[in-house]
Amino acid sequence: MRSFAGRDILSLKDFERNEFFHVLQVADELEPIARSRKNVDMLKEKTLVTAFYQPSTRTRLAHEAAMHRLGGHVTGFSDAKMTRAGDWYQESIKDTVKMLEFYGDVIVMRHFQQGAPHEAAKWASVPIINGGDGWGEHPTQILTDLYTVLTEKGTLDGLTWLCVGDMRMRTMHSIAYALTQFDAKAIFVSPPDMSMKPEFKEELKQYNLDFCEAPHVGDVIDQADVILVEPVVQPDYTKSRQEAGEHGETPANYKITRDLLFNKAKSDSILLHSLPRMDEIPPDVDITKHSRYWQEAYNGVVMRMALLALVLGKME
Amino acid sequence: MRSFAGRDILSLKDFERNEFFHVLQVADELEPIARSRKNVDMLKEKTLVTAFYQPSTRTRLAHEAAMHRLGGHVTGFSDAKMTRAGDWYQESIKDTVKMLEFYGDVIVMRHFQQGAPHEAAKWASVPIINGGDGWGEHPTQILTDLYTVLTEKGTLDGLTWLCVGDMRMRTMHSIAYALTQFDAKAIFVSPPDMSMKPEFKEELKQYNLDFCEAPHVGDVIDQADVILVEPVVQPDYTKSRQEAGEHGETPANYKITRDLLFNKAKSDSILLHSLPRMDEIPPDVDITKHSRYWQEAYNGVVMRMALLALVLGKME
Amino acid sequence: MRSFAGRDILSLKDFERNEFFHVLQVADELEPIARSRKNVDMLKEKTLVTAFYQPSTRTRLAHEAAMHRLGGHVTGFSDAKMTRAGDWYQESIKDTVKMLEFYGDVIVMRHFQQGAPHEAAKWASVPIINGGDGWGEHPTQILTDLYTVLTEKGTLDGLTWLCVGDMRMRTMHSIAYALTQFDAKAIFVSPPDMSMKPEFKEELKQYNLDFCEAPHVGDVIDQADVILVEPVVQPDYTKSRQEAGEHGETPANYKITRDLLFNKAKSDSILLHSLPRMDEIPPDVDITKHSRYWQEAYNGVVMRMALLALVLGKME
Repeated sequence: MRSFAGRDILSLKDFERNEFFHVLQVADELEPIARSRKNVDMLKEKTLVTAFYQPSTRTRLAHEAAMHRLGGHVTGFSDAKMTRAGDWYQESIKDTVKMLEFYGDVIVMRHFQQGAPHEAAKWASVPIINGGDGWGEHPTQILTDLYTVLTEKGTLDGLTWLCVGDMRMRTMHSIAYALTQFDAKAIFVSPPDMSMKPEFKEELKQYNLDFCEAPHVGDVIDQADVILVEPVVQPDYTKSRQEAGEHGETPANYKITRDLLFNKAKSDSILLHSLPRMDEIPPDVDITKHSRYWQEAYNGVVMRMALLALVLGKME
Repeated sequence: MRSFAGRDILSLKDFERNEFFHVLQVADELEPIARSRKNVDMLKEKTLVTAFYQPSTRTRLAHEAAMHRLGGHVTGFSDAKMTRAGDWYQESIKDTVKMLEFYGDVIVMRHFQQGAPHEAAKWASVPIINGGDGWGEHPTQILTDLYTVLTEKGTLDGLTWLCVGDMRMRTMHSIAYALTQFDAKAIFVSPPDMSMKPEFKEELKQYNLDFCEAPHVGDVIDQADVILVEPVVQPDYTKSRQEAGEHGETPANYKITRDLLFNKAKSDSILLHSLPRMDEIPPDVDITKHSRYWQEAYNGVVMRMALLALVLGKME
Repeated sequence: MRSFAGRDILSLKDFERNEFFHVLQVADELEPIARSRKNVDMLKEKTLVTAFYQPSTRTRLAHEAAMHRLGGHVTGFSDAKMTRAGDWYQESIKDTVKMLEFYGDVIVMRHFQQGAPHEAAKWASVPIINGGDGWGEHPTQILTDLYTVLTEKGTLDGLTWLCVGDMRMRTMHSIAYALTQFDAKAIFVSPPDMSMKPEFKEELKQYNLDFCEAPHVGDVIDQADVILVEPVVQPDYTKSRQEAGEHGETPANYKITRDLLFNKAKSDSILLHSLPRMDEIPPDVDITKHSRYWQEAYNGVVMRMALLALVLGKME
């Protein structure tokens, strides 16, 4: 297995089965630190640089919280408007990274442009963690989800995943790549105009991923061990509709209601959502035995602790 | 007395007389650390989460500075625009807090909506500190003011407070609740349209607070031991007037001038303002013996050190 | 030599020759810490306050990174919009500083107004570092450049500097003041409407600085040991032109191309740019032996480590 020390975390396409399990095991080893709510000194000598060209709460703060839990330092920017890197200059990723690499020892980058973290990794002498790149991928979120499933179900093999949302989105790309490394079945449910692109489906077939598509969650939820949900509307789209006086509502096809869970879902199925949510999971679902999205938020810190410790060479 | 460990600081209505004195005593014990300008290790194992849905300089930075002085870590957001929590999603406080509680060990929240920190406290497993909630309260600021008065006057009993400004504002609510616990008299001076709401006055009467209202500071300043001043104009109101070419000026009724202090105020009265100010205290008042607002800024750090150490269980 | 402990770093006009060499020597002593990529404990007890009234990436983050490398804490604001200090209140520098001085032990300030850091220094009890004040100065950037030249050329005497850009800008003022303390020659190249102001040239003559002006870099590059480049267009100017559909291009007179370097420049001349850049240095120059701007970014952290350690009294 390739060492994680100094390695970029750009895509789950790069990940092999044993690498997944290694990251998950390191997360498990570090989890007691998060549980104890006591920052330790492990990464005291290290600084994380956050390079967020788009606002984010969970991804940025989970990385920062993880760094603080391990005693490390944090600097960076949380919005492109806070920096000249994002303004009219349109500074190249190369120019920006040739600066940021000296400000810390690992960089987590969110960018509106797909591939930006890969371009950064090309130039940086420190590891780059992809915190979400446009339509591209969101590897640390899906690693969090895998960790949640492993801790809740005890295994990542033999499970059927129901993935609901906009299939063109980065988390969907990352989960699909990840599932190719497990004995897993995937069912994708999305509005027709948000379905998985033909070329991506072709790619998944070449990986021998066992997947299918369905038009309505109600038709397939009974097969699911894990239900992974994302909003089916794009922020901008919704915003303009809201300004036009409409209040977007998620169609029943893509909505996980209490009724649906009680009447059709497997009794031990678990429900994940990286949040924030619209109405695709109503609040009355929160207290059902299925919901695990608060646990996901906690695991988000644990997983980032593992990734930071690994790429900074403090865990092997 | 209830323990402060793990406790939320939401309102001064919750505070009892001996609790006030306990917090003030802890502040006094920690003050030498601030004075020495040397960060210590007391909260090294802890992380503060700042959740500021509205910009703030003093409240946010005083909490951050206090955390740093005690060796702790800080993460969070300083503007709702920096986070998806504040954007079109209008994520519920519950959803946001079910995430933030894992990113640190105490959360300080400023919110434009009254009661938001109380809602947060309902869901969070970590203490919530109210950093100002709309028209609601601003407990940490008023605790700072009480600490300033105690250190400057040696007592909190037997004093007459002159409170000038918009009586509907959060600091005014907090100071009124606080004064019910001391042998204090309060005089409120505000423009008629900014006077204390009848229901709030009714509440204060039930607490047996000795208070009255007056139309002009000049009529009552001679009675005051402490003069607490806030702007009488709302930012938005002023802004629109300024854009219309008008330059708002505070009427003499609500202005503390050098002349007024020299000619009418008690010789040992002290003047507080949480700042920033408009023209309600002209700069030439700064060097009078009455002004204590710079001292307040210093005490703002000391008080937050005490509150953080208390709710995190590091001081008893 | 005056002690640096507690001293403000406002202008290079204040700096004497032996003070330059002292700062450069301290930078050299601390450089191994940056190179080792291991944060130490030197400034663990100290907090840096960043007061950035204008966005900045490099200046703010280089100071933050330096503070973290030395184990210190950081708080502050990175944008005036994040704070009430910068909004309609137009709070005075005095009022703001009388607060910030209690939040940390040293303040680095960027301000759109020339002289703002000097005004801050008048009121603050902690050292103020000028992180760029309008058209004024940018001392820490030029100290970084001097350190880069010293490490690359082994000396600061006997060199000819070619300074290209808007001569009214803050970096140009700082480099001109700095060069008066060395056996240096300066050649200034700028568009006619951006040439050095007559009163500033008069001042430089009184310092006996050996300088001249030239209209085209091609005419004088053969004399240069150091080429220091800044954009020749102002952001706002360029932006409005871009919005009008024009794409600004730097005229050949002020552009350092690969051809020019290969055909006319001294073989051992070095090229500096504080970045970000427009097209005044095309990307194909990056891999020439002349370019040192990535090194500058690294040295930016080293120099700020030296300055922070000095004004905080941890290095003598």
